[in-house]
Amino acid sequence: MLSLQDLLLLFTETRAQSELICSFLEVEDYVVQPRENVSPPKWHLGHTTWFFEEFVLKDHNKDYELYDKNSAYVFNSYYESVGEKVVRTDRGNLSRPTVAWVYAYRNYVTKAIIDFLEQTEISKELCGILEIGCHHEKQHQELLLTDIKFILGNNPLLPVYNKQFEENPIEDFEAEWLKIEEGVYEIGHQSTDFCYDNELGVHKTYLQNFEISTKLVTNREYLEFIEDGGYEDVLLWHAEGWDWKNTNNIKAPLYWHNVNGDWHQYTLSGLIRLIPDAPVNHISYFEAFAYAQWKGMRLPTEAEWEIAQKQFNWGTRWEWTESAYSPYPGFKTAEGALGEYNGKFMVNQKVLRGSSVATSEKHARHTYRNFFQPELRWQFTSLRLAK
Amino acid sequence: MLSLQDLLLLFTETRAQSELICSFLEVEDYVVQPRENVSPPKWHLGHTTWFFEEFVLKDHNKDYELYDKNSAYVFNSYYESVGEKVVRTDRGNLSRPTVAWVYAYRNYVTKAIIDFLEQTEISKELCGILEIGCHHEKQHQELLLTDIKFILGNNPLLPVYNKQFEENPIEDFEAEWLKIEEGVYEIGHQSTDFCYDNELGVHKTYLQNFEISTKLVTNREYLEFIEDGGYEDVLLWHAEGWDWKNTNNIKAPLYWHNVNGDWHQYTLSGLIRLIPDAPVNHISYFEAFAYAQWKGMRLPTEAEWEIAQKQFNWGTRWEWTESAYSPYPGFKTAEGALGEYNGKFMVNQKVLRGSSVATSEKHARHTYRNFFQPELRWQFTSLRLAK
Amino acid sequence: MLSLQDLLLLFTETRAQSELICSFLEVEDYVVQPRENVSPPKWHLGHTTWFFEEFVLKDHNKDYELYDKNSAYVFNSYYESVGEKVVRTDRGNLSRPTVAWVYAYRNYVTKAIIDFLEQTEISKELCGILEIGCHHEKQHQELLLTDIKFILGNNPLLPVYNKQFEENPIEDFEAEWLKIEEGVYEIGHQSTDFCYDNELGVHKTYLQNFEISTKLVTNREYLEFIEDGGYEDVLLWHAEGWDWKNTNNIKAPLYWHNVNGDWHQYTLSGLIRLIPDAPVNHISYFEAFAYAQWKGMRLPTEAEWEIAQKQFNWGTRWEWTESAYSPYPGFKTAEGALGEYNGKFMVNQKVLRGSSVATSEKHARHTYRNFFQPELRWQFTSLRLAK
Amino acid sequence: MLSLQDLLLLFTETRAQSELICSFLEVEDYVVQPRENVSPPKWHLGHTTWFFEEFVLKDHNKDYELYDKNSAYVFNSYYESVGEKVVRTDRGNLSRPTVAWVYAYRNYVTKAIIDFLEQTEISKELCGILEIGCHHEKQHQELLLTDIKFILGNNPLLPVYNKQFEENPIEDFEAEWLKIEEGVYEIGHQSTDFCYDNELGVHKTYLQNFEISTKLVTNREYLEFIEDGGYEDVLLWHAEGWDWKNTNNIKAPLYWHNVNGDWHQYTLSGLIRLIPDAPVNHISYFEAFAYAQWKGMRLPTEAEWEIAQKQFNWGTRWEWTESAYSPYPGFKTAEGALGEYNGKFMVNQKVLRGSSVATSEKHARHTYRNFFQPELRWQFTSLRLAK
Repeated sequence: MLSLQDLLLLFTETRAQSELICSFLEVEDYVVQPRENVSPPKWHLGHTTWFFEEFVLKDHNKDYELYDKNSAYVFNSYYESVGEKVVRTDRGNLSRPTVAWVYAYRNYVTKAIIDFLEQTEISKELCGILEIGCHHEKQHQELLLTDIKFILGNNPLLPVYNKQFEENPIEDFEAEWLKIEEGVYEIGHQSTDFCYDNELGVHKTYLQNFEISTKLVTNREYLEFIEDGGYEDVLLWHAEGWDWKNTNNIKAPLYWHNVNGDWHQYTLSGLIRLIPDAPVNHISYFEAFAYAQWKGMRLPTEAEWEIAQKQFNWGTRWEWTESAYSPYPGFKTAEGALGEYNGKFMVNQKVLRGSSVATSEKHARHTYRNFFQPELRWQFTSLRLAK
Repeated sequence: MLSLQDLLLLFTETRAQSELICSFLEVEDYVVQPRENVSPPKWHLGHTTWFFEEFVLKDHNKDYELYDKNSAYVFNSYYESVGEKVVRTDRGNLSRPTVAWVYAYRNYVTKAIIDFLEQTEISKELCGILEIGCHHEKQHQELLLTDIKFILGNNPLLPVYNKQFEENPIEDFEAEWLKIEEGVYEIGHQSTDFCYDNELGVHKTYLQNFEISTKLVTNREYLEFIEDGGYEDVLLWHAEGWDWKNTNNIKAPLYWHNVNGDWHQYTLSGLIRLIPDAPVNHISYFEAFAYAQWKGMRLPTEAEWEIAQKQFNWGTRWEWTESAYSPYPGFKTAEGALGEYNGKFMVNQKVLRGSSVATSEKHARHTYRNFFQPELRWQFTSLRLAK
Repeated sequence: MLSLQDLLLLFTETRAQSELICSFLEVEDYVVQPRENVSPPKWHLGHTTWFFEEFVLKDHNKDYELYDKNSAYVFNSYYESVGEKVVRTDRGNLSRPTVAWVYAYRNYVTKAIIDFLEQTEISKELCGILEIGCHHEKQHQELLLTDIKFILGNNPLLPVYNKQFEENPIEDFEAEWLKIEEGVYEIGHQSTDFCYDNELGVHKTYLQNFEISTKLVTNREYLEFIEDGGYEDVLLWHAEGWDWKNTNNIKAPLYWHNVNGDWHQYTLSGLIRLIPDAPVNHISYFEAFAYAQWKGMRLPTEAEWEIAQKQFNWGTRWEWTESAYSPYPGFKTAEGALGEYNGKFMVNQKVLRGSSVATSEKHARHTYRNFFQPELRWQFTSLRLAK
Repeated sequence: MLSLQDLLLLFTETRAQSELICSFLEVEDYVVQPRENVSPPKWHLGHTTWFFEEFVLKDHNKDYELYDKNSAYVFNSYYESVGEKVVRTDRGNLSRPTVAWVYAYRNYVTKAIIDFLEQTEISKELCGILEIGCHHEKQHQELLLTDIKFILGNNPLLPVYNKQFEENPIEDFEAEWLKIEEGVYEIGHQSTDFCYDNELGVHKTYLQNFEISTKLVTNREYLEFIEDGGYEDVLLWHAEGWDWKNTNNIKAPLYWHNVNGDWHQYTLSGLIRLIPDAPVNHISYFEAFAYAQWKGMRLPTEAEWEIAQKQFNWGTRWEWTESAYSPYPGFKTAEGALGEYNGKFMVNQKVLRGSSVATSEKHARHTYRNFFQPELRWQFTSLRLAK
């Protein structure tokens, strides 16, 4: 269990970080929702605040007065068991509450939590909920960055978010193949540090002999796939991937622009020329799979990745794995509304491992199980080959 | 042809009025687009400005420098013949250009037009285009109000736009039936004042004997229709109207809310109790038609309305007519981009006559032909019975 | 009122004709529904039979025993006021009742009607319903032919329906312009012969001076429009027509196939080379309008067509008019289920005048008001220019 | 490798079985396609025939003359690499080729294969393709039954397919819990008998301690779940399952009908009262999962099922597992068009194990990996609990 001091530090740093991320925005940028799964930044700011109000202050502080009884309605998201909610596709239609209101709401709740922490004996259970709240907000910080990128990167004016944001670390070392011996291995979260429920349950798993690359696929390599007709060869694709690609007229990763024959990519620091030695970015699982097929190789499973990961660098891109998102042995959904969190998404999603340049500090760990539908590409996603 | 002084007055008053309408908004309210046919207020402000830049300054002032060459792309609308445009459903996804940018753009163009007017000999043609530009902006002023109402009126917080806005004049006089004799009548715009091309061509038309009410249908009367099961009686509805009603689960006019058994309606001054003696508001043509069927009567045609209108008061609500929107005899589309204006909508729309509490000053006239798809209700629409 | 003999003749001839039309089909052809508005032939055979059972036998012959109480459910169509019905898009999913069952049902009802006519005193009202039933079935005979054409003409094997069916009469005379003087004219059905309720109400209308062509637009002329880029010039099209054309990738009339550079068209007698001197066929209102715009002319109104039609030949193609389908002055919906027939479609449809090579004998008359949505093309439709 | 005699027997029995299944149909039943994933029976008959023509006769018998060069176009399905194909949703719109044509095509190809087998030295590779062809057709035999059930079971007349078809074996023994010890196990196809490529690659896997029921969940038990509000408790469902259920208004398994308060179910032998002791049938993975959540248990993984299956009876229902359909270690897509077969579906599908009353003889085996999207229910699907 965290000390009060550590908990306060975690909480205040987390709260400040969300606001720092948004400090580069215009008021208008907080409001729009160009796709169903891209939420308006003000919604992220409000929703992470609502979480603390709903699960900490309302439940544990009997003196607490709600900032505004309508807020829950607007900022609840997937917690279907806690009251009515705003349909996800409607979030971008809500001009009110305003951005200024959301910041006032944040301040009110942040202060209320700090006051509460300083005046109350914090139980282990409550400490756990506060930690979840902070990590929940850290997760939304990554979504803030990817949603902001989507909002600005699909605006015809291609505005810069922050000139200093560096998302393309150059990796100019040679790739090597790590060989892992077959046998029984253990995976799952082991320490007492924070983790989500879906990582719990250390358990044995049997791995066959396999090899995994020490390096992510680069833009240069991915471009070869494109130029070799990879997007036109049906045999490289899943049936569903092929339909997705055709329906959406996909011919390159998201944010790639061919300007007069030269490939560029939109980044949070603006439109730049494609950097050949940077890891490929913003591809769907379908594309990652097709690329691996084209190489005659495959994606690693999440267990393979977890066992091998000590021996290579990771952390600039989320890495698609071949594993479907399923419960670990012994996984139990927690009781009550917080139990809605992870289990309900365990179908039709693929696991991604690692973390990315957009992941918040202290939010990355080698047992983290990220997951998205196989067609989604607005996260910082890439691939590592296995065979 | 207007004098320079009148033209300047028309122009400056019109420009100021759009900004006055928006002065009650928060920045966030300018951005959203909750339905395809409801545009973000900042788009209206930019688009009406683009019109003057594109058709006056760019074409007629060789010294003019564009404020920003990307603006046309963002603010062009239905003028398909003038460059690329932003797809209508994407308008609400554009956080940039910002509201501040749009106001700067407005100021730049407004000033450029005034300078140009004061320094140039204005031809009759150019004067005509400027007049169209002003009336085009006046038309968007009404859309601004109705779109703002839709944006705020569909927000779960139901925010007030302007406490002073009065949209429900009480009409407590008795309705009478005007009798009009059959014969040949003339309709169409006759004076030298401004009008749109679709009103032109004064022409004879033959009317049968008919009677028309001196009063719009009231909320009280419409409520009787609802309570008598009007929304559930298939024989009162067009086949297409019945499908529309069922698909959208329509059971009352737009903005009606049943709060604990009492009917309320959202207005630009907030949520109020339904006013029984005010004219019914925000109904579709389909609903107007079903109401008239239920009464054993009908809607007037636009010719009947135009001939009879001198003998009753109008101007608080747009009035659905039975007439489909079609060209008057001899109607010719104007040459070039401005010619796209009216003719291209002359299919699958119904004519509305009169004007409403949201219509801009000097924009109402008895020959005005407004038109919308029969299912739309976000304008201030009502009905007057004929038989 | 028809004599018993004439009524029997009308009835028996009509019933036989529907079966003759279907005699060229395979069993499988009776079943499919490739588009929502194209019904399976067995549905037409059953529905026209159901009409006589429902409105004549069930209502007027107390000794009548229903052939099968489920039949009404399956073969009811738009008569929403008479019991449940099969949703239109589901008709093509119903393999039962079988074709053999439908023919047995037809025979049973046909015989029951004949027996009933021969044994009963037929009232004027009943005679009217029987006449409507026959004309209703004649109308479905044309739909049978156009639906069969759609079913076979969209099959990749392009099977022949009937080698003898002639749908392209060559018209090699020179077109002339008829001039009609402005003034008050009368239109509407005048004789005591059968007509639909939408034609009733002879009434005066005022026409301006106009000219109308004595000849339909030919394939040769329409091809010039295509080759001149008519399908790519936005200024020729309604906004809604332009969207329809783009969404559906329309570049020529329905059933045109460009085979190695030569235009062919599918006909009920198979795929043939395009006949330059035949009237253009299977175009939408949107295309007819765009063609007229391209010529600098227009489509006639239905009143113009009715007044001028004595002076030209018509009958090979339905002719799109500029008129929206609206009630004539004094139009009243009939009481009860039969009243659903025409009025409920009086919105968002365009009137077509004349008749076609697919129209049943004795079903064409100069006051007939056919109507369809402006995008539909599977009827035998063409255009005649006016100015 | 099979002997010639065994191969001939396998082939002729398989071909005859498909026709036996269809012998209970009316011609009309062969034609319709009520849902995208339910193919017309004549398509199954033609497609399985096309497989032999395309991959055996065309490729290996140079004297073979195609029955009709258009057939490939119509009966190709998912083999995107082999020529054009008919879009899946259009299959039900094709009245031609006729059923009679399809039977003639079958006879021609069946005879050509037999002649070819009797006159040629069959290589091991060709023998393999023929075996695949037979098992491919056996797989379509199950689809024929489930598609026929869907076609007739969604017809408002609920026609009987075959009075003798028994799909509800009563299981009146007590369920027991088998306990399996944790450890390394081997799964995958081991014998030299036929199997699909997705079963290959015997490999070790680590299982934790688990228990699995010896009996499928019964209708009686499933009804308790319904009556306890299982379909209304959001916490039991995946997010995607909850949406699916609400969008489609699902409140019970497919083919259940509540007739005056009594539950019935449509079966291939007609509508019957629900049999409490029969295993529940026609449920989606989402429903199976929700049921297991409600019991506080879970579905087995496919590896658990395969290891435990010797100790319980199976074969009346396909059993949903928790396992997503993924490649076994070392899985390689075969070269060429046949390689499209299985791998391309390895995303967003769940594995089902066992077999059903509709599975063809000799087509069931304990390593068989069936797979479907989690929302599909038209197969004979059920669930077995694990914990």
